[in-house]
Amino acid sequence: MAASRQLGRQHWRQERTARDERIAAARPLADGKVVSAKDAVALLEAVLRPGDRVCLEGDNQKQADCLARALSGCDPARVHDLHMVQSGIVLPEHLDIFEQGIAKRLDYSYSGPQGARIARMLFGGQIALGAVHTYLELFARYFIDLTPNVALIAGVSADREGNLYTGPNTEDTPTVVEATAFKNGVVIAQVNRIVDKVPRVDIPGDRVDFVVEADTPFYVEPLFTRDPAAMTETQILMAMMAIKGIYAEYGITRLNHGIGFGTAAIELLLPTYAEKLGLKQKIATHWALNPHPTLIPAIESGWVSQVHCFGSEVGMDRYIRERPDVFFTGIDGSLRSNRAFCQTAGLYACDLFIGATLQIDLAGHSSTVTASRVAGFGGAPNMGSDPHGRRHPSQTWMKAGHEAAQREGGAGNPALRRGRKLVVQIVETFGDKLSPTFVEKLDALELARKLDLELAPVMIYGDDVTHIVTEEGIANLLLCRDADEREQAIRGVAGYTDVGRGRDRAMVQRLRERKIIRRPEDLGIEPLDADRSLLAARSIKDLVHWSSGLYEPPPRFRNW
Amino acid sequence: MAASRQLGRQHWRQERTARDERIAAARPLADGKVVSAKDAVALLEAVLRPGDRVCLEGDNQKQADCLARALSGCDPARVHDLHMVQSGIVLPEHLDIFEQGIAKRLDYSYSGPQGARIARMLFGGQIALGAVHTYLELFARYFIDLTPNVALIAGVSADREGNLYTGPNTEDTPTVVEATAFKNGVVIAQVNRIVDKVPRVDIPGDRVDFVVEADTPFYVEPLFTRDPAAMTETQILMAMMAIKGIYAEYGITRLNHGIGFGTAAIELLLPTYAEKLGLKQKIATHWALNPHPTLIPAIESGWVSQVHCFGSEVGMDRYIRERPDVFFTGIDGSLRSNRAFCQTAGLYACDLFIGATLQIDLAGHSSTVTASRVAGFGGAPNMGSDPHGRRHPSQTWMKAGHEAAQREGGAGNPALRRGRKLVVQIVETFGDKLSPTFVEKLDALELARKLDLELAPVMIYGDDVTHIVTEEGIANLLLCRDADEREQAIRGVAGYTDVGRGRDRAMVQRLRERKIIRRPEDLGIEPLDADRSLLAARSIKDLVHWSSGLYEPPPRFRNW
Repeated sequence: MAASRQLGRQHWRQERTARDERIAAARPLADGKVVSAKDAVALLEAVLRPGDRVCLEGDNQKQADCLARALSGCDPARVHDLHMVQSGIVLPEHLDIFEQGIAKRLDYSYSGPQGARIARMLFGGQIALGAVHTYLELFARYFIDLTPNVALIAGVSADREGNLYTGPNTEDTPTVVEATAFKNGVVIAQVNRIVDKVPRVDIPGDRVDFVVEADTPFYVEPLFTRDPAAMTETQILMAMMAIKGIYAEYGITRLNHGIGFGTAAIELLLPTYAEKLGLKQKIATHWALNPHPTLIPAIESGWVSQVHCFGSEVGMDRYIRERPDVFFTGIDGSLRSNRAFCQTAGLYACDLFIGATLQIDLAGHSSTVTASRVAGFGGAPNMGSDPHGRRHPSQTWMKAGHEAAQREGGAGNPALRRGRKLVVQIVETFGDKLSPTFVEKLDALELARKLDLELAPVMIYGDDVTHIVTEEGIANLLLCRDADEREQAIRGVAGYTDVGRGRDRAMVQRLRERKIIRRPEDLGIEPLDADRSLLAARSIKDLVHWSSGLYEPPPRFRNW
Repeated sequence: MAASRQLGRQHWRQERTARDERIAAARPLADGKVVSAKDAVALLEAVLRPGDRVCLEGDNQKQADCLARALSGCDPARVHDLHMVQSGIVLPEHLDIFEQGIAKRLDYSYSGPQGARIARMLFGGQIALGAVHTYLELFARYFIDLTPNVALIAGVSADREGNLYTGPNTEDTPTVVEATAFKNGVVIAQVNRIVDKVPRVDIPGDRVDFVVEADTPFYVEPLFTRDPAAMTETQILMAMMAIKGIYAEYGITRLNHGIGFGTAAIELLLPTYAEKLGLKQKIATHWALNPHPTLIPAIESGWVSQVHCFGSEVGMDRYIRERPDVFFTGIDGSLRSNRAFCQTAGLYACDLFIGATLQIDLAGHSSTVTASRVAGFGGAPNMGSDPHGRRHPSQTWMKAGHEAAQREGGAGNPALRRGRKLVVQIVETFGDKLSPTFVEKLDALELARKLDLELAPVMIYGDDVTHIVTEEGIANLLLCRDADEREQAIRGVAGYTDVGRGRDRAMVQRLRERKIIRRPEDLGIEPLDADRSLLAARSIKDLVHWSSGLYEPPPRFRNW
């Protein structure tokens, strides 16, 4: 019995033993846990095994770029056929490794800058695509069937025990480390510097195996800075409609905003237009949102109770430090972001998701994919979906649910009525280069056909969308009784696009009488009032002023 | 400008300042961070303020019971009107504080043992109910509008810096601490002992303000131990049908099980019945599941690749330590559970949720609520819902989605077809005391009326349920074309209940021809074969044997 159990003991510790061997192989390169940047390639070659699942931390913003370069510097004869499982494909190295034969398979969530190159490599068969996930979905799979064998992560500093300080861009790090470190994986962190004591412990040292002192500070993308100077009167008009026709009517207090100019305009109208409507403390008090600079005037005006963040934003650090009542911060004073929790908050604790898209079809399906780019959707499909698992009521959610029930002819027992998440698309009828936002067929379908994808890359499906806001008006899809009404409601706000011009005018008129379509004048909004003077800040400099000089915009946004 | 910014600085640090004052008030009671159990009441009276939002850690299993007693010992003249925000209402003290006037408002997720008393106190107006959430939903709100001011948590040990070791029942602790510590809250941990160095750091010390050395080890509930000796042949028959008619047909690899005997029977049939069907490594490989003792035979037989756990289970510690290839464990060797991540995994990374319920109505709505108990649903509504935000395909999910599309007459563009989560109810037609499982009207509706709840306490709504398994057969609700077919499909497996006897026999026959209803014989299952000899373990002792003596069942399960 003892012998067989001893045998068993070996049998059930193969992963653990392999982990110990990897660490032993790398140990000669390390001083304790610390490895110098020049040995990073050797470290990865010692730790990695062919076929490993690897998370090379590519977050929405923070990039483990030193380790990305090191991975790309590995000998493909030693390190090959890796299965990359990471939320962001952002740096060139993230794709170089596929061309080099180091990596083979990819499961990811988002790729802004590399979307076109991913598409070309998928066409060319250089990447075996697992799937394009939402962030939260990929995190979920980290714990089930996509658990990393090795995680290559990034932080600001570490001590010699491996205690890690991420600074404000905590983002995905705790999630990646938890999945890896507790399932026999190896965690390697790059840090900008080794210190005696970290300002706060974002990751306990006993979850970190090696620390690489990087040659340069890790790269962070500023992604959420929208210059008010570039905001148009059309965007301001749409923002006014959203505030008066949706935020006020449903009494939305808990919400998430996308990153476009339309929602940034809403943020800038809170202390002006919305204040005049008497909405202060009645709407937009609790947020799942990155620290958007355009939210500063609303914060300074006392509109905002609390903001939980997915990540941070370049230039916002000092401001956040001085606003601990609003933001989640650590004992070091800087932001503590957390993408997994913020995405969960966006899914289950917010009553509204509002964002933009590139294309919307006649059923309300939308996508940011074009025929030549596979960008991924990040968090939008998660936060922009109606969570059937929600069980707590709110006024907003119940009102939307009541409208949805009316649509179904009031069928079913009213006592069994649920609420509905508000999912709003705020788009101009024509986008960049005058390409129409409203289309008969999404480019995503063509891409799915070309790449033979099982699932078309749809960002938000039509049945989850409740409202579409354009410069022509608001379409309330909740109130549409059937697919025809829905199509005409969409056509009815699609302006001069082909889809808009193809409307049935009589039916659109009836929809307007039923308040399914509402024009600015139906909302008591005079389009000529949509003036830039309504913006609480009209420039980045104004935002700096609002912040009492605490907001420090990146150089490219400084033009004074 | 400097003066105004100074003013501003104060203005934006009210929470932070209040936090510092609370800690300063308690400091005289502490030696560093350590407070003795006899001073726990004084500690709470020093830290708490009337109206505070407080999380008194009541998890599914682990209880901060020493701190619960201390809170209940506070002077209601000093500590009153608290708003309790915690997932579990388990201990008597969790409700005593409402009777004492210490607490007033409650937002929670689950209460098994206290469900009847909560109901009485709600009727009596002693508790102001916020809402009954799922776990993940309540966690989400911790980051938006239910952020705790004070968290009272439990761990196995702590060092003098406050670094906390939770042991295998990590459960909710990281989530509760993250929401509290990073938003100016105060975190107080009770631990079984103070040590020089913790075996692993589950919570970094800089997030913990005070550590109380408890007078007794914290209470843990064994909740997931199902004695195979109590398993009936009816449950075995249902388990056989589920395996052959659902698991095999959809090729389910990633899954979550409820805690009833039906799913425990499935676990025990994997190495026997399912093995004979040739399903090894084809089904049930990756799990979001607590460490169910009934999973031991499947693990030992090589069926299970990986299990991520919400919490732990009493008696499973040594077994888990010796199976690190299967379970998530820490450097100390013991389980690392995490309810937030496991719930997320159950939502987004699993293709199947299967569980039991007390009542199912004619539309497939189900509830475990009775007219006199408000138990809450824990995680079931979350994991038992179709996540619209999912964007990664799997064979299982796409097949279910294909069936759902057929239901809708194949309407819409096939390229825009999505998958579906399988949500299965496995129930006997009559439950305890021969009360019928199938009813015309859920008791939940009566409770909602009596308590004037905005939302009836439905566990899983009918539109999320895909299959119902009873001893009479499987009803596939995905394939039903309308509400009538759905009702008859449900009646068709409802046996001799009134609902079952009210069936339209001709229609049920047609549904059977269309394979919407399948009897055991339609699946090639002979009910007489459903014998206890099929169970891989027929007693707790068998489970111990399977585990090579590593599983150490609690005394109440030891009868040899």
